[in-house]
Amino acid sequence: MLSYAIGVDLGGTNLRIAAVDEGGRMLEKLSTSTDLAGGRDLVIKEMTQAIHKLLDKFRGRGVSRGVGIGVPGIIDMDTGMLRESPNLPGWSEFPVHAEIERRLGIPVVLENDANAAALGEQWLGASKNHESMCMLTLGTGVGGGIVLNGKIWHGMNGMAGELGHFNVEPEGHPCNCGSRGCVEQYASATAVVRMAREAIASKLSENLARAAESAEFDARHVHELAKQGDAAAQKIFRCVGRALGIVLADMVNGFNLPIYVIGGGVASAWDAFAPTMMEEVRKRSFVYAATMPGRLQAALPPKSTQITMAQLGSEAGLYGAACLPLQRAGVK
Amino acid sequence: MLSYAIGVDLGGTNLRIAAVDEGGRMLEKLSTSTDLAGGRDLVIKEMTQAIHKLLDKFRGRGVSRGVGIGVPGIIDMDTGMLRESPNLPGWSEFPVHAEIERRLGIPVVLENDANAAALGEQWLGASKNHESMCMLTLGTGVGGGIVLNGKIWHGMNGMAGELGHFNVEPEGHPCNCGSRGCVEQYASATAVVRMAREAIASKLSENLARAAESAEFDARHVHELAKQGDAAAQKIFRCVGRALGIVLADMVNGFNLPIYVIGGGVASAWDAFAPTMMEEVRKRSFVYAATMPGRLQAALPPKSTQITMAQLGSEAGLYGAACLPLQRAGVK
Repeated sequence: MLSYAIGVDLGGTNLRIAAVDEGGRMLEKLSTSTDLAGGRDLVIKEMTQAIHKLLDKFRGRGVSRGVGIGVPGIIDMDTGMLRESPNLPGWSEFPVHAEIERRLGIPVVLENDANAAALGEQWLGASKNHESMCMLTLGTGVGGGIVLNGKIWHGMNGMAGELGHFNVEPEGHPCNCGSRGCVEQYASATAVVRMAREAIASKLSENLARAAESAEFDARHVHELAKQGDAAAQKIFRCVGRALGIVLADMVNGFNLPIYVIGGGVASAWDAFAPTMMEEVRKRSFVYAATMPGRLQAALPPKSTQITMAQLGSEAGLYGAACLPLQRAGVK
Repeated sequence: MLSYAIGVDLGGTNLRIAAVDEGGRMLEKLSTSTDLAGGRDLVIKEMTQAIHKLLDKFRGRGVSRGVGIGVPGIIDMDTGMLRESPNLPGWSEFPVHAEIERRLGIPVVLENDANAAALGEQWLGASKNHESMCMLTLGTGVGGGIVLNGKIWHGMNGMAGELGHFNVEPEGHPCNCGSRGCVEQYASATAVVRMAREAIASKLSENLARAAESAEFDARHVHELAKQGDAAAQKIFRCVGRALGIVLADMVNGFNLPIYVIGGGVASAWDAFAPTMMEEVRKRSFVYAATMPGRLQAALPPKSTQITMAQLGSEAGLYGAACLPLQRAGVK
């Protein structure tokens, strides 16, 4: 008998909804753009209609284990309130959990989108052989998610996982969060573009200046130039790598997890930032060094620490969201 | 029927052994100095003799649940090897677990001393109302311990909890671990003395210079001068507070734990470093801000994040060590 759940990834740009069975097979996927201009009510209406469409389709063919929704923003797990959500303007301090359940008529598990992506990678992606992991998602910001013993680590009220606001430069670039020098200010797509514009202003690269004339100029263009050998573009990705390496070294020293996964759009520039990132981790984490093979001639080789690219791309959050009701039902 | 365990705190200076019952009452305590010069074998012999003395004493009066030992250094939990131990010279790469069990003749639970202290504070001290917490122990170095859902978080092979090597200044003071700018280089007793000597070399304080003439000059003298209004000494503790605040902000953003405990000798200078520490946490952690009462006018006040001094002093590690066999036996 088919046992499945609905996973929803409610992004600032796209709304994606999938039916996923308990073995991790995607049975069907619907995608639409998120019509934020139409307001909260319209977005929730479109989402609940699409969820019902999938539920109707599979009715009679299997048991629905419920609905999980990944939302960009900080959710207070006690109250079901969306506390901060820069990508869903007008949704802050909104009782999103209660509203969606009321409109859908069935229970819903709500989760931060970066946490859901981490769970997806842990279930079916880069970390599927490890019960504990953390993931950094390098997008517009830097999201984080921590999975310990197969479950998302929420902390006392669901706000854990904000690894994008680990400090890497105490007096560094101001961050939207109120601090300075958060890793988000050096390793997000936004940060790559900012550093490119800083390099252009300092007349460090004519290539970057030409590329930046395009209205679509983004982190991918900077990566393309880095691959072509542009020194300023390469230096930007060394900054990305250094910032990531400092955060990863903290996490390895503090939590000794078996695997650390890097996802999101900027992760595709792995070749450009990973060498510096790994160098920083080796230099800054004696726990990393102590877990690497070759250091000891012991008969039992120590377990090694893995730092690796995500594997599920933008579907990680969808799989993770579907995983939540399956976990709650005890079938995963 | 009395149910108890033996806790051992094997320090570089003192060896302390206690019988603790499952309710957390200390039944008896033995203390001796650690005769490191006599070599590993002698230390283990003295320790096993003292443990047997306590076990003999309580035989017939209750059920012994086993022995837990806190050791300064990094223990590979898979192999029971002491991997690094600056305070027990000559013990590195030593199969400490197997040797102690063989000599004692009964099973032993081994634990890093800072982890044991964290567990002690979680069981009976500052964090006794919270199942999850972390502790920073400001001593010769900065030790760390993380307790999640009532259990020490070990990571994949027991090396987790090294919060003393979280980065707070990427190009800062070199650390023994191989990195630069670890919090240990700004918030340990050793760091306080180093910063005092730097201030003296820069002729910033005649008071500090006079105090440093004593062979026993240590962090307590610097704190005393800070209390008396010496500007250079006060500035040193602001450095301590800033470094601690950066690490705590990382931890609050990443893990959203309910409580963070500061212990060890330097913690007694709380009045001198805590104002700067709290200011940094408020500035650098939006998760901290989001959990503080008063920010929301919600009917349900959010849970707040606590940052507080340890309560058990040097006995935290002894209680924590005794807690380990009680947990293993399932009676705690």
